[in-house]
Amino acid sequence: MAHLDASTVVIENIRKIATLATPDVLEGDLALGVRKGRVRYLGPRALLPQEFTNAARFDAGRRLLTPALIDCHTHPAFVCARAGEWELKLAGVSYEEIAARGGGILSSAHAVAAADNATLSRATQRNLLLLKAHGVGVVEAKSGYGLCLEHELRQLRAIAHAGDAAEIKTVGTCLAAHTLPENRRGSPELREQYLREVCEEILPQAARSALATRADVFCERGVFTSEETRRIGRAAKSCRLALTVHADQLSHSGGTRVACELGAQSADHLEYVDDADIAAMKAAGVVAVLLPGSTFFLRQNQWAPARRLIEAGVPVALATDFNPGSSPICNPAFIMHLAVRYLGMTPRECLAGFTRHAATALGLSTEEWGIITPGSRAAFAIWDVEDAGELPYYTGSNLCAGVITCQGWRD
Amino acid sequence: MAHLDASTVVIENIRKIATLATPDVLEGDLALGVRKGRVRYLGPRALLPQEFTNAARFDAGRRLLTPALIDCHTHPAFVCARAGEWELKLAGVSYEEIAARGGGILSSAHAVAAADNATLSRATQRNLLLLKAHGVGVVEAKSGYGLCLEHELRQLRAIAHAGDAAEIKTVGTCLAAHTLPENRRGSPELREQYLREVCEEILPQAARSALATRADVFCERGVFTSEETRRIGRAAKSCRLALTVHADQLSHSGGTRVACELGAQSADHLEYVDDADIAAMKAAGVVAVLLPGSTFFLRQNQWAPARRLIEAGVPVALATDFNPGSSPICNPAFIMHLAVRYLGMTPRECLAGFTRHAATALGLSTEEWGIITPGSRAAFAIWDVEDAGELPYYTGSNLCAGVITCQGWRD
Repeated sequence: MAHLDASTVVIENIRKIATLATPDVLEGDLALGVRKGRVRYLGPRALLPQEFTNAARFDAGRRLLTPALIDCHTHPAFVCARAGEWELKLAGVSYEEIAARGGGILSSAHAVAAADNATLSRATQRNLLLLKAHGVGVVEAKSGYGLCLEHELRQLRAIAHAGDAAEIKTVGTCLAAHTLPENRRGSPELREQYLREVCEEILPQAARSALATRADVFCERGVFTSEETRRIGRAAKSCRLALTVHADQLSHSGGTRVACELGAQSADHLEYVDDADIAAMKAAGVVAVLLPGSTFFLRQNQWAPARRLIEAGVPVALATDFNPGSSPICNPAFIMHLAVRYLGMTPRECLAGFTRHAATALGLSTEEWGIITPGSRAAFAIWDVEDAGELPYYTGSNLCAGVITCQGWRD
Repeated sequence: MAHLDASTVVIENIRKIATLATPDVLEGDLALGVRKGRVRYLGPRALLPQEFTNAARFDAGRRLLTPALIDCHTHPAFVCARAGEWELKLAGVSYEEIAARGGGILSSAHAVAAADNATLSRATQRNLLLLKAHGVGVVEAKSGYGLCLEHELRQLRAIAHAGDAAEIKTVGTCLAAHTLPENRRGSPELREQYLREVCEEILPQAARSALATRADVFCERGVFTSEETRRIGRAAKSCRLALTVHADQLSHSGGTRVACELGAQSADHLEYVDDADIAAMKAAGVVAVLLPGSTFFLRQNQWAPARRLIEAGVPVALATDFNPGSSPICNPAFIMHLAVRYLGMTPRECLAGFTRHAATALGLSTEEWGIITPGSRAAFAIWDVEDAGELPYYTGSNLCAGVITCQGWRD
């Protein structure tokens, strides 16, 4: 991993570039010229323009270069992994049952509340750096282990600080509506009280702080209903937060339809969507974010219908869902493996899912992010493989040789 | 990754050490003192003996330290991955059918034969370094893509060179009996000719070169019969090579019984062993080397009976089986994940499987290898986890922060 803090940079000795643009692949003795955080030249090293003669240089070791990956659905502001719960899961206890016993999200919320700011920032930075070590440069990062104004904002602040320290672009998402906090359970009045806190305090303040640009709701049986999701989504939009929804993961609970109705950027998970939901996504321009890591980890049998989504013309992004309980996976290449194996996606679709479509899911310009072309952002991943088609192949292993960023790439 | 080329070394700022000795775990502000490649002190940093005052120092960043892992079954002398065959596998074509079409091992053999020595060494070094990046310090490395005297020895030489260059201890295993080479197929006479070449030329010369200390046979339906395995195993023993067998992987083909009969160090795979085989292993002191990576990658339904082996008192080692076709996995932690999930092993058993039992499988002293105790080899892995119990948890991700070795550790 390297951040090249120079205004003019050359990355040389590249064997292959997967551009995600036209042409899709360049091969040969290649070089890439960067000025002020943007790509200015890519092509044969021999034809590198003279303006790069005195540039800072980085040797890619004859490896493959891709855009730095974009992970558009993660929960990295956690303090400790919930490895203990895994034994329960393997013994057959369901995710919902563990949550009902006070494990799951609530136990992560306890840990966040108990951690001081330095501990929370350090843990968040460690988690972002784990993603970066696996090829990621842009991370959508959710709160959702705060579950009250103070701790939601603390999480969002930790994400912003950790992103700066780790030289990662973060997109903050307020997920106050992850679950009901412990002290708001047990009566409709308490439930209503939390909904009001989310809509009237947490989301507006998160928006005002500029630490979050998006809001998310976990719409699921036993969590938030589709009516509540609609209400929270409207509140988010009214304070100019973009919307995304945890939708139809464990049951056909209606989150996707609310996402479409409210013009969300994405609907995520989607294991239980039907054809009408898919048609609604296409019509509303909602990106599908598929998270096969959690399906695998939770040993669900129901995989998201990736092929039907793609055939319907819905852009399909992939993400790690990196979190301490239901997807302790910080390796996009393993997610790609699962997507090929269980969702029937091609390796090329997987790479688009972690670049172009992920950018779309986050509302980032696809001319600048997740692509290597003149004008694009200077953030790259270097891979120890022959070809990008091999990324899903090295099952559960990390073949990323580093993420390279250049001065000004996030600005 | 760091090799500390100094006779006296201190690793400090260690939060926890999983020793695999007694006591099993140390916690606190720890340090480790090394002299001439052997551990001399481990314990509180404050009590570090004076002899280490001027030692070279390495900061473990408050992380967990374990012994460097021992991967006791790999095929790293390959030139390119067989990602193309994966599509066939996903379309339902069997491993045996792909082999019959000239894919599989034969296609890797073609690539090795076509590569010059520099290319083969470079590729092998890349593969060993991938293992090292995932926590491995000792690699059992098989030939088996040579399938004739010249190319088997070239592979074994590439392994030795690459191990030296990558500062990895390699244990070379001659797997000339991986399959019949293309030019020895089609008649019993040709088959007999290759068996004679293996027994009378390749194994003796591999032993004489000292590039291999072990021999291996792929005993399987459609590959080598148990009678042929016995014959090759006897030839190996007569030139003082230790023996290991690819046994009972795809069918109950008898390899384990031959391994027991000939006093092999290990029998590997074992998906189809029965209780009598297990009793024979216990009686003969043969280590079980389980390779759930290939079971997972090949989408087999039959997992090795780890619990029955453990309950019978057979030492159970785990290994990656890293190879370009049936287990493109260089991450021991992912193998541990599969072992917990599909074999019912505990995280503690998994760590023993990649340390103590792997050392036993390779005939290495368990007082020096795969353990951290006074007198043990100075090769360590540093992990970005709270506890060794979390190693299998971060599914398909690499949490290894580096392998540390010290001058003289392999001598």
